[in-house]
Amino acid sequence: MVTIQVHLLLAYLALLTTCRSWIIDPGPQVTATKGEVWPYPQREEKNDSYYILSPSYFHFNIISEYCSILQEAKLRYTNIILKDKRTARKYATDVNKAGIKTDKFVGYLNALDVSLTEPCTGTELPELYMDENYTLTIPLSNQKKPVLEARSIWGILRGLETFAQSIYTYDNDPNLYLNATKIEDFPRFPHRGLLLDTSRHYLAIEIIYKQLDAMSYNKLNVLHWHIVDDQSFPYQSAAFPELSQKGAYNQHQIYTQVDVRSIIEYARLRGIRVMVEFDTPGHTRSWGAGIPELLSSCYKNNHITKQFGPMDPSRDFVFSFLNDFLSEVKTVFPDKHLHLGGDEVPFDCWEGNPDIEAFMARLNITGDYRALQRYFMQRVMNITSSKNLVSIVWEEVYNAGTVMPDDAIVQIWYSQYYMLDQVTLEGRRALYSTCWYLDHLSTGGDWKKYYLCDPQNFNGNANQLKLILGGEACMWGEVVDSQNVLQRTWPRAAATAEKLWSAYEADSLEGAAKRIEEHSCRLNRRGIPAQPANGPGYCLS
Amino acid sequence: MVTIQVHLLLAYLALLTTCRSWIIDPGPQVTATKGEVWPYPQREEKNDSYYILSPSYFHFNIISEYCSILQEAKLRYTNIILKDKRTARKYATDVNKAGIKTDKFVGYLNALDVSLTEPCTGTELPELYMDENYTLTIPLSNQKKPVLEARSIWGILRGLETFAQSIYTYDNDPNLYLNATKIEDFPRFPHRGLLLDTSRHYLAIEIIYKQLDAMSYNKLNVLHWHIVDDQSFPYQSAAFPELSQKGAYNQHQIYTQVDVRSIIEYARLRGIRVMVEFDTPGHTRSWGAGIPELLSSCYKNNHITKQFGPMDPSRDFVFSFLNDFLSEVKTVFPDKHLHLGGDEVPFDCWEGNPDIEAFMARLNITGDYRALQRYFMQRVMNITSSKNLVSIVWEEVYNAGTVMPDDAIVQIWYSQYYMLDQVTLEGRRALYSTCWYLDHLSTGGDWKKYYLCDPQNFNGNANQLKLILGGEACMWGEVVDSQNVLQRTWPRAAATAEKLWSAYEADSLEGAAKRIEEHSCRLNRRGIPAQPANGPGYCLS
Repeated sequence: MVTIQVHLLLAYLALLTTCRSWIIDPGPQVTATKGEVWPYPQREEKNDSYYILSPSYFHFNIISEYCSILQEAKLRYTNIILKDKRTARKYATDVNKAGIKTDKFVGYLNALDVSLTEPCTGTELPELYMDENYTLTIPLSNQKKPVLEARSIWGILRGLETFAQSIYTYDNDPNLYLNATKIEDFPRFPHRGLLLDTSRHYLAIEIIYKQLDAMSYNKLNVLHWHIVDDQSFPYQSAAFPELSQKGAYNQHQIYTQVDVRSIIEYARLRGIRVMVEFDTPGHTRSWGAGIPELLSSCYKNNHITKQFGPMDPSRDFVFSFLNDFLSEVKTVFPDKHLHLGGDEVPFDCWEGNPDIEAFMARLNITGDYRALQRYFMQRVMNITSSKNLVSIVWEEVYNAGTVMPDDAIVQIWYSQYYMLDQVTLEGRRALYSTCWYLDHLSTGGDWKKYYLCDPQNFNGNANQLKLILGGEACMWGEVVDSQNVLQRTWPRAAATAEKLWSAYEADSLEGAAKRIEEHSCRLNRRGIPAQPANGPGYCLS
Repeated sequence: MVTIQVHLLLAYLALLTTCRSWIIDPGPQVTATKGEVWPYPQREEKNDSYYILSPSYFHFNIISEYCSILQEAKLRYTNIILKDKRTARKYATDVNKAGIKTDKFVGYLNALDVSLTEPCTGTELPELYMDENYTLTIPLSNQKKPVLEARSIWGILRGLETFAQSIYTYDNDPNLYLNATKIEDFPRFPHRGLLLDTSRHYLAIEIIYKQLDAMSYNKLNVLHWHIVDDQSFPYQSAAFPELSQKGAYNQHQIYTQVDVRSIIEYARLRGIRVMVEFDTPGHTRSWGAGIPELLSSCYKNNHITKQFGPMDPSRDFVFSFLNDFLSEVKTVFPDKHLHLGGDEVPFDCWEGNPDIEAFMARLNITGDYRALQRYFMQRVMNITSSKNLVSIVWEEVYNAGTVMPDDAIVQIWYSQYYMLDQVTLEGRRALYSTCWYLDHLSTGGDWKKYYLCDPQNFNGNANQLKLILGGEACMWGEVVDSQNVLQRTWPRAAATAEKLWSAYEADSLEGAAKRIEEHSCRLNRRGIPAQPANGPGYCLS
């Protein structure tokens, strides 16, 4: 008995330690850095010598290729830099003397040369392996020109963000400072995503724009748009308008074709892909509101009920519908990747449905619902392949032993690192999300647990590691809507962003804490209502 | 070994069940009620018969006493009702026919008579035992007039809120509906508070106004303003300006005398007391920035360090300062109650300080730091008593055995119900907060755990139960600032509000879930960014 009680006590202590949501320990006050870049650049040589940026003269000087994406970016970053509220602080002391410690002062910075070396038409689409490399040089001597250089427009976008982040101020000094630095930067992983769920709660278009802004401030490059699910179908299909007419929560909370195209364009201008997910065969209750024939009827004691289960694999109609529907999806969403879901398929409504049972008997898979699940997903992936789209699926599809196209990508969401090992050992590409579920809450400072995760934390060979495309922070929508989703996402997703962009173990938790403290205030200044990153403290707006 | 492992397994399961922040189970989609009042009225007889409120004609008809508080409230609620965005929905079908099922339709409602039976000068201050009773009658026949009646202006404010909440709409119908009803309402507890902490993070004045709006929408009547703490001293004292000059985070994030008075007035007009807390002798690091002499110097190995501990009880200066400072506080904060804190006093800097040790020897309490803590709080309470202020203290002061004035109130924040029993058994009044710490987070729907708490859940006699004044939801500021505090507070604090206003077990969890779903959308419509109360769903704005 004593032994048992001791063990119960130990387990209780474990419980107390694990349930961090009950313990308030935001730790000591964290001092924000000044002008540190988030995510941390791959290579940076920073110097104490500094410039002061002249708000009256500063401009971007495009010295090479020019296109509309660059033009838009130039306007955005001119606004971000010159409308920095900190420069307008009333209590500014003598502007000419305030912060200028002459020994390290290089001079006033009036322009940044921007050099894009490859052609840019303005119609470019961001894609999986796009080139995001750039170099930013703020020289030690003002005899040389500060310059941002990149081969591709995407590199220029990332570099402009880095340049804007490098500018800092002091509390009682309105000047904009910038240190001499040499940055050579590129992402560690090509797929750096944020999943947004617009089915459990609708997200206003303005909120999605804000999310895209914030993503660009964190160099994330994929919006994984989990657009529909059981609860609602807000996507307004041109070919099948009944889907949203009957499946959306209401007719105000839908995404029209114009809305969707606007969001894709907004994302494109920021170098962000929009990868849409139409999850089947489970998670499809809302599809049935408009087109009930898509779903399996559930049976109880051999009698049909009014309940519906996942899509019905026994009906050819389902696949011909999906063929037509996905044809439309391909025209609306230009990305070459389509997320097909495939997660959490419940078998209880396939079971007992006489049509489905008969169909399974014909396939010689009587009683093997996993085989039916495989059959369904294989047919859907055949459709996407026939449309030259690359399939992305949740890990269940892989775990069920589905035969997939070679290029199909598996997204791990509940298994630990070992599954990355397993998937890549077979030569298949993978994405990781298990450790980055933003809907799992705890009290304050929980970006740290996201920061301790690394998608290459397994013993894989070089080839395996290359097959890890990156990962995604997942902001599922059960308990967030337009009122709180931005606060809940940021700065927590910033931890994921740094893990996916920066070099392996680029910074310690302690170092990152100081930098994310600055970064959260930066997000606030730019209109993203990020919640406090660490414990007590303040931002100067 | 087997036994042990079984127990470990059980404990592990307990852990999984308890750590709800790791489990996403928002439960099934909750259907919002229509026109149900939150917090639930004490007595309500509601009828299916309904009116339609005419936006073009509707007005409040004051048929009795009138004063500026009433005038302001009339304007506020006219705006809330007539600017209800739902009435302007574009897709409105035929306004005259839409929702009118003639058999239950009583008529159009053009006015609400408002009858305040006791005089009102407009200078009234809300106070602990203020009269908040009201009756609201929307008669079954339109031959009688709808009327809101109350003895006091505070009852009128509560009744106007109830009236505004009773109005509802349908999704595709712009009409404002209101059922015939008879409500007799009054609060169960006189002290229904929300604690805001403006020291760990500064809260913008506009955010405090929004909090006061939201409190009035929930019939909460005390803002417990935890205005300063270790981290910062944002209160700008007239007599001791150095406190905020040196102790605030910066000179933008302070509350001037004008700010404080504006907040008190804003609260007063909504029937909300502002009970300020100046917490001593611990939690005072920021006081020492402006007036270092207040704090105990810490010693290590008989050498003075640069660290400071709690206020120094050995110095008469400390008490003469507190006497002067609290004199100012009394002129600025009109409430008769002053929260003196007294929680979490660390002894490590009293220990080893030679002046303090000598002082303790003189008092004959060598080595007994709890006695020193008692001494300190007794002197502070003597000061407040001499100013005719009632002291409120955190439970540590009581637990240390401090001799307190008879009218002093103890706020329980970490002990369970038994402490309420203990305190009230001695004839002392108490407030409860242990179960309502809003900074303890879990994933979604966690208003339910707040709703299951009741401050009279102990075996006390009638006299004891009467000594329970109510309680407070505590929104400590470690991980909230102006960006997320409203989202984090609402609708979670609404659960506390209902437990403190409504009758014991007025509603089930299931019933409350439907009502809080409506209430959260109501808060959203009125500009309070409450987060989703339950799982998936939507509000029509």
